[in-house]
Amino acid sequence: MSVPQAFYDYIDSHESQFIQRLADAVAIPSVSADAEHRKDVIAMGKYLQKQLQDLGVEVRMADVGRQVVDGQDLPLPPVILGKFGSDPKKKTVQLYAHYDVQPALLSDGWNTDPFKLTHDGQTGRLYGRGASDDKGPLLGWLNVLEAHVKGGLELPVNLRFCFEGMEESGSEGLDELIESEVGPGKFFEGVDCVCISDNYWLNDRTPCITYGLRGITYYKLTVSGPGRDLHSGVFGNMVHEPLVDLVHLMAKLISPQGEILVPGIAELVAPLTEEERKRYDKLDYSVQDVESAVGAAVARSDDKSELLMGRMRYPSLSLHGIEGAFSAPGAKTVIPACVHGKFSLRLVPNLTPENVDGLVIKYLKDEFAKLDSKNTLNVESLHGGKPWIADPNHWNYVAAIKATETIYKVSPDLTREGGSIPVTLTFAETLGVNVLLLPMGRGDDGAHSTNEKLDKSNYIQGTKLLGTYLYEVAANAT
Amino acid sequence: MSVPQAFYDYIDSHESQFIQRLADAVAIPSVSADAEHRKDVIAMGKYLQKQLQDLGVEVRMADVGRQVVDGQDLPLPPVILGKFGSDPKKKTVQLYAHYDVQPALLSDGWNTDPFKLTHDGQTGRLYGRGASDDKGPLLGWLNVLEAHVKGGLELPVNLRFCFEGMEESGSEGLDELIESEVGPGKFFEGVDCVCISDNYWLNDRTPCITYGLRGITYYKLTVSGPGRDLHSGVFGNMVHEPLVDLVHLMAKLISPQGEILVPGIAELVAPLTEEERKRYDKLDYSVQDVESAVGAAVARSDDKSELLMGRMRYPSLSLHGIEGAFSAPGAKTVIPACVHGKFSLRLVPNLTPENVDGLVIKYLKDEFAKLDSKNTLNVESLHGGKPWIADPNHWNYVAAIKATETIYKVSPDLTREGGSIPVTLTFAETLGVNVLLLPMGRGDDGAHSTNEKLDKSNYIQGTKLLGTYLYEVAANAT
Repeated sequence: MSVPQAFYDYIDSHESQFIQRLADAVAIPSVSADAEHRKDVIAMGKYLQKQLQDLGVEVRMADVGRQVVDGQDLPLPPVILGKFGSDPKKKTVQLYAHYDVQPALLSDGWNTDPFKLTHDGQTGRLYGRGASDDKGPLLGWLNVLEAHVKGGLELPVNLRFCFEGMEESGSEGLDELIESEVGPGKFFEGVDCVCISDNYWLNDRTPCITYGLRGITYYKLTVSGPGRDLHSGVFGNMVHEPLVDLVHLMAKLISPQGEILVPGIAELVAPLTEEERKRYDKLDYSVQDVESAVGAAVARSDDKSELLMGRMRYPSLSLHGIEGAFSAPGAKTVIPACVHGKFSLRLVPNLTPENVDGLVIKYLKDEFAKLDSKNTLNVESLHGGKPWIADPNHWNYVAAIKATETIYKVSPDLTREGGSIPVTLTFAETLGVNVLLLPMGRGDDGAHSTNEKLDKSNYIQGTKLLGTYLYEVAANAT
Repeated sequence: MSVPQAFYDYIDSHESQFIQRLADAVAIPSVSADAEHRKDVIAMGKYLQKQLQDLGVEVRMADVGRQVVDGQDLPLPPVILGKFGSDPKKKTVQLYAHYDVQPALLSDGWNTDPFKLTHDGQTGRLYGRGASDDKGPLLGWLNVLEAHVKGGLELPVNLRFCFEGMEESGSEGLDELIESEVGPGKFFEGVDCVCISDNYWLNDRTPCITYGLRGITYYKLTVSGPGRDLHSGVFGNMVHEPLVDLVHLMAKLISPQGEILVPGIAELVAPLTEEERKRYDKLDYSVQDVESAVGAAVARSDDKSELLMGRMRYPSLSLHGIEGAFSAPGAKTVIPACVHGKFSLRLVPNLTPENVDGLVIKYLKDEFAKLDSKNTLNVESLHGGKPWIADPNHWNYVAAIKATETIYKVSPDLTREGGSIPVTLTFAETLGVNVLLLPMGRGDDGAHSTNEKLDKSNYIQGTKLLGTYLYEVAANAT
């Protein structure tokens, strides 16, 4: 089934209305992390509910409970579950996006009001909080739907919508909802594949499709000794200092060259295949890209593929900080009584929190014993999540690749990402179908940063991409 | 010249008035660190001015300038300079104490209002902020003076008072004032010795006299790399992480057993003499004392003398914390872009900031080079002060030892302290006379902590001790 030209024509002729739709959405400051903005998150959900209903979607606003934030008992924003079409001859595509955003204040360093979409005519950039993460992609689906409904076109697939309002704040309640809606007669019945549009191109030039995410396991390493903080003048050189022990332990986790020093981790990593290595060599990326992204020449390797594999297919161990020690500016002569080192491991196949936690905890206990300290050690895993990887040869990916080639006239980069999008794994494991990450924005969009933007071309071409993908699903699904 | 019995009788018969004097002083919340309490510090100074003047002291309230605190431009509390007696046949004793206090809130964990002196009749303890640090000792001198003036007794020495109101907040303005008042016709002309009462017994049993203080040199070790904080999912295993480098460097400063790893430091420490070692063996102290003071069995040695020498006559290196990394509770997956490690060295003869700083900075630069990191290192010394040591065989010490034996019927512990009291060094260096630390309170007074107390017996016997010391100065000075 080829894409009707009328679809593309509708998008092109409604560009300004679609930008207005994005402006209307950005104007609602749906910051899920801020109790004061919870009402705006809920308002954003209602705004979407109405838009979806106006386009003929059967909408259910799923209540996922309440949450206490800063002592306030707040309702969680509803998860929007929508159905459009139930034709048994068509494939059913489950879509996911989120309607909440990261916090943003003009005083953080924004050049324009973050909650007023600002179109820079020269660069074609649309600035505003949520423009790229994730209101633009979410509205892309509404644009596609409108083009069909109002343009008198028939959608080639059945659609299921799952739009949440807590993605930036731990997706509270989402996993439980998804799990409860799997099974005969439930919402997710009949879903053939999942498409999540909530990530970015690897760079600012080449579209990408993402088939893997790292997992994580996050640790809190506590060393305690004295019953209270001590003055270094009085007790310096009299007691075993917890921070000294902690720093020695943290130094034993990772070398300055990035080598994970915990025995047994490297052996669990799936071996690199020749085919896979070639996939990295093909990606449109350079050492310069990472250095300009981080703002300094601190890349660990001069080999682009090594760098990419460091992010995408190897684990990483990062030290995040220390709680309980002196952390303010200036000078304080304290011997902290109890300190907590925070670090995490990003996981790739075949590492899981289950097979890593024991190795990490045993190693730290063994190394602590070698310190011969009278202090006490405790190691906890605060949270964890498995890595996710999909088969990029699946028809769902074939559809996305063909759609990208149609719209952008290039082969997309096939990427894995270093971070986590936990809902991806939830969909993959509970629905048992292929999950695809199909990004709309570019790598320089500044998703969680100041001056977040979405290029107008990514919004408009991206809307065409999403629609085209649905036709390719219909054409390629087996 | 023996101490007149009438002096002791006056003290004993005025015990309740002296306790009331302490209660009046504690009731003025002269917290120098808090801008809101600056007026109270100034009120405390005026209260003392009047008391001194009523006893015939020639008082000058020395203006030492202004200070900006939390954006407020505040006057510094005046330094009270007082003269009593100018008999050329008598020795002139310079006294120092301070009239400001540490912050205190009932909600910090006090059992009673910190600014209401509470007398526990059963234990004989006087609870209140500043009771021991340093209002009790300061008022001890007023009690001694009153006993002579109102009791019709002649003081055996001339007195000079120097009472400051900023000791707990860096003694702002004090050094400059002292330096400006040295020389012919100036305030400090003719001073023969200095007595500072602003420290504590080593334990809660045995009086002590203190003849040494450690110096300090405080460092800020900065490792920077990326232009901004990074997400460990995106950049973990792609860049050199500043916190990894910092933790490796901090681990190279000090072993878990307390050994300073900076080459050249140990060689600069004055060798231990047999006589000195015996002095530590004689001190009334045990491993149990340090463990009960710190609230845990974390002492570095099972040998009491080794522990005491660790505090008193050897340097120590303590790690205080890290600025710029994640330090809050919970989990955050940040790669901090720029982190500052804070550590300090406590100095003993013959270590000085001048001869230590170069060794520390060179060592850290050499070790950083070995890390082969693309990040950048900077090491700064934030502040420093030399150690101080006096000759405990000087007549000033002989006088204090004899006075202690008279009042407490035991030989005092001769101690050195691990911390700094910068004015000690200022007096020693600018006046060129012997300086003595003669404490009034006990080691368990909780000077900077909650439920600060002064035992009534320490206040009353301590007042007698201060007076007796003046007679012994007159008798022993050469």
